[in-house]
Amino acid sequence: MNPTAVVLLSGGLDSATVAAQAIADGNTVIALSFNYGQSHARELLAAKQIAAHLGIQDHFIMDVNLAKWGGSALTDTAVAMPLNGVQSNVIPVTYVPGRNTVFIAIALSLAEAKNAVAIYLGINAVDYSGYPDCRPDYLEAYQQLARLSSKAGLEGNAPTLVAPLVNDSKADIVRRAVQLGVPIAQTWSCYQGDTVPCGLCDSCRIRDRALIEAGFADLATLIGKQLYSACFEP
Amino acid sequence: MNPTAVVLLSGGLDSATVAAQAIADGNTVIALSFNYGQSHARELLAAKQIAAHLGIQDHFIMDVNLAKWGGSALTDTAVAMPLNGVQSNVIPVTYVPGRNTVFIAIALSLAEAKNAVAIYLGINAVDYSGYPDCRPDYLEAYQQLARLSSKAGLEGNAPTLVAPLVNDSKADIVRRAVQLGVPIAQTWSCYQGDTVPCGLCDSCRIRDRALIEAGFADLATLIGKQLYSACFEP
Repeated sequence: MNPTAVVLLSGGLDSATVAAQAIADGNTVIALSFNYGQSHARELLAAKQIAAHLGIQDHFIMDVNLAKWGGSALTDTAVAMPLNGVQSNVIPVTYVPGRNTVFIAIALSLAEAKNAVAIYLGINAVDYSGYPDCRPDYLEAYQQLARLSSKAGLEGNAPTLVAPLVNDSKADIVRRAVQLGVPIAQTWSCYQGDTVPCGLCDSCRIRDRALIEAGFADLATLIGKQLYSACFEP
Repeated sequence: MNPTAVVLLSGGLDSATVAAQAIADGNTVIALSFNYGQSHARELLAAKQIAAHLGIQDHFIMDVNLAKWGGSALTDTAVAMPLNGVQSNVIPVTYVPGRNTVFIAIALSLAEAKNAVAIYLGINAVDYSGYPDCRPDYLEAYQQLARLSSKAGLEGNAPTLVAPLVNDSKADIVRRAVQLGVPIAQTWSCYQGDTVPCGLCDSCRIRDRALIEAGFADLATLIGKQLYSACFEP
């Protein structure tokens, strides 16, 4: 019998890629998504489509309303969404306080209840270098907590936190997604929850640039293609 | 201005006591309770009453339905509630996978959004020695994670996890509750969600024994008083 792995599946490109990676690694995957009050709850539709595409049987969508206290452009309409370009070396206002800590905690609960041996995360330290909860030392601290927090952990069998993309560039992730057969067009990255991606938010810009760099310009937003050729000129 | 502290307030005796302690320590308290699919959601009524009694202005009640995957007598009606006496040196079936890890994670999110300097926890390692997520080394690992998981943490200002009861006996907690003016009769410990405490579940038994030992037998359940005199004979 295949081991069981929980995959945090937001519906974006990175998490879809790790879901496909978890399957390629020989796991039976349980997908876990969150309705956390995000501006782009539209991504949950993508998560469902990707889970179905990848043949994932078990998919939990959990409500945990972090918009109750906001503190981010993704969870508080009073905070303006940045649309003028990605700033580097700052924690952007799209950072959601404690989000990954909450998501991984809930994944640990699910993993323990289902005897999963691994939790796959789409965390990436390169393009989101400003996010404190996307870095390797954060993951190591969480792994240590996992060892101490459960019955299985006390027996030496804590689930392993697997972050295969943590040091990849976004263009690397696109290439890996293509290799693994991820339905890239079905993934949703835009921070704004409209019916088509805005092409202007940080997430659209980072995704579009990577798609173009990796040779998949046809999948970038029209606006993204224009911005890329204006700003980066490949 | 007083510093802000988040208090995890279940509505039980221990968390009510730490809420009163946090106030006595000079903090402005934000209370945080969870509707997690527990058998005894009745405790949330107690949490509201206690918050009102203590003059706590901000009280968040968060839905996070851990009963979606169960794995505990508190979150899965298919798991029988133990009613025949407290077993020692085992992790009881009332242990909820990942519960404290989830609760503290959400408290970290709230603390970060509200610039709280501390998170007060009613965790106790003595009477619940079987629970992996009630022990000091677990808390130390979580404190390390808190240092790495947030903007404030990266600046050396992570909220402090405060667990004033972690090494107290339950009778010690009763005495402290009385000193702090906690409305003990309003707190709710019973794992079964009826209108009166059952006196038979582990939580009732541990509470009743402590109340009787600390000299407050009048607050124990009628059944608890009978069980105590039959089993412990003070």
